Amino acid sequence: MSILAVGSVALDTIRTPQGKGKDVLGGSATYFSISASFFSCVNLVAVVGRDFPPKYSRLLKKRGINLGGLVIKEGKTFRWGGEYGWDFGNPKTLFTHLNVFSKFDPKIPQEYKKSKYLFLANIDPRIQERVLKQLNPKLVACDTMNYWIQNKRNYLLRLLKKIDIFLLNESEARMLTYQYSIVGAAKALIKLGPKIVIIKRGEHGSLLFSDRYIFSIPAFLLETIVDPTGAGDTFAGGLVGYLAQCNKFNQLNLKRAVVYGAVMATFAVEDFSVNRLLVINLSDIKRRFKEFQRLSCF
Amino acid sequence: MSILAVGSVALDTIRTPQGKGKDVLGGSATYFSISASFFSCVNLVAVVGRDFPPKYSRLLKKRGINLGGLVIKEGKTFRWGGEYGWDFGNPKTLFTHLNVFSKFDPKIPQEYKKSKYLFLANIDPRIQERVLKQLNPKLVACDTMNYWIQNKRNYLLRLLKKIDIFLLNESEARMLTYQYSIVGAAKALIKLGPKIVIIKRGEHGSLLFSDRYIFSIPAFLLETIVDPTGAGDTFAGGLVGYLAQCNKFNQLNLKRAVVYGAVMATFAVEDFSVNRLLVINLSDIKRRFKEFQRLSCF
Repeated sequence: MSILAVGSVALDTIRTPQGKGKDVLGGSATYFSISASFFSCVNLVAVVGRDFPPKYSRLLKKRGINLGGLVIKEGKTFRWGGEYGWDFGNPKTLFTHLNVFSKFDPKIPQEYKKSKYLFLANIDPRIQERVLKQLNPKLVACDTMNYWIQNKRNYLLRLLKKIDIFLLNESEARMLTYQYSIVGAAKALIKLGPKIVIIKRGEHGSLLFSDRYIFSIPAFLLETIVDPTGAGDTFAGGLVGYLAQCNKFNQLNLKRAVVYGAVMATFAVEDFSVNRLLVINLSDIKRRFKEFQRLSCF
Repeated sequence: MSILAVGSVALDTIRTPQGKGKDVLGGSATYFSISASFFSCVNLVAVVGRDFPPKYSRLLKKRGINLGGLVIKEGKTFRWGGEYGWDFGNPKTLFTHLNVFSKFDPKIPQEYKKSKYLFLANIDPRIQERVLKQLNPKLVACDTMNYWIQNKRNYLLRLLKKIDIFLLNESEARMLTYQYSIVGAAKALIKLGPKIVIIKRGEHGSLLFSDRYIFSIPAFLLETIVDPTGAGDTFAGGLVGYLAQCNKFNQLNLKRAVVYGAVMATFAVEDFSVNRLLVINLSDIKRRFKEFQRLSCF
């Protein structure tokens, strides 16, 4: 089944203890789409400026991603600069130039409207809601960030009533629910509407909560991390990609989708930008899935 | 098979956001022994003062723990006072009165010498080594802490060559190996001698490393933690207790031993002191083991 992904396509300038990259391909929709493209057909909706390097468009096309919804506007592409310390946790933002992304008002191309899976990457919840209104998907997953929780809380709460899978990190879960306990926060989030809540804990793995069960996976233990940018969106790509491939949401598929999400994220952080994701294949992914199974099943 | 446990028996004064306790039963050997006693026969070696409440000895005996090696000396019992914040992480130590524990020089009773399993709780590595020399165990597990790593590093390194299972937490692993990466630290630890290294990560679960495989479990998600004191020793008790029960160290048993360790620790933190451990039974333990399996297998 095909997936519609709406979010940012950006040019990132990144410094980590392992090196640096200038104007490398980034953005939430980019990481998501490349990751999901290993499992399903992806329709991308995003905006870039005239300066967007054609080699990046080619690279996305080469992964089979449909670019009919990638609008090229007068102006410059969204640029973000960030720096990571040795803990590879929250980066220090060096600059954010929204450029053409500041007026992002996604129109869904007619050919995309049959998409049965929708991923709303981290953007203004009002835009996320406008996109959702243009479609009738079978499953909607969405991400958010602290900025929207703090500044657009009511819009986000309205959106959450219509969401199937809500992805966020630990501190965002606490911020949105005013609960310190992660189990408490997850229960409160489920009451806000989403059928499934996925809490991403970075190097400590991730948690899936439904009203009936909890699933917890440890992080895959990588000896070296090069660049954690996009790990969360890559995770979402593996998750939604695998679910769209299965097209059936039983407990086992959901658990495995979380593992495929984590597997994809472990690849993403092994090199700068999306570089590592471009050189792996499905058998690399399946091998790592099996390693995950050995790592955590008993 | 019977287990010999050497460590502290103490009276703790604890404050946590959930309440407080004064002169409650504590100590590494106490938590370990009670936890292990659900799986195997435990021989305790420790020292207390004349003020040690007889009700606490009765309570240990009631769990079937052999107290032939619990020496009562002139003076007061080891006392520790600590306070936990809402993160339930490292407590603030309010006081440490070693009392009779300051001259702890464990003699192993003849009847204990047939013990095939040995747990050396967190004490001076020179004492741990002296105990080990008095025995010929099939398996030796040992714990340590930052103080010994900083102040008795060489003695600890000498001891580690004779250890089968080495338990420590994340920051101790980094401190001992000078490596930030947990995988790097674990590999360095294995080179120091132990066949198995177990890194405890508190609310983020625990990791088992051997030279051939890694096993990782997430923490069981508790909505309420009352008192985390003794969680690590309770974990060790479940781990060594289960291994002594199996008496066979294949990969599956080791993985399950880690899970039983984690299961026991989740009970320990649900009430002050060892209170919760005194009211559970084997079917409670098995039920939680199964919940753990549902939580983390796919």
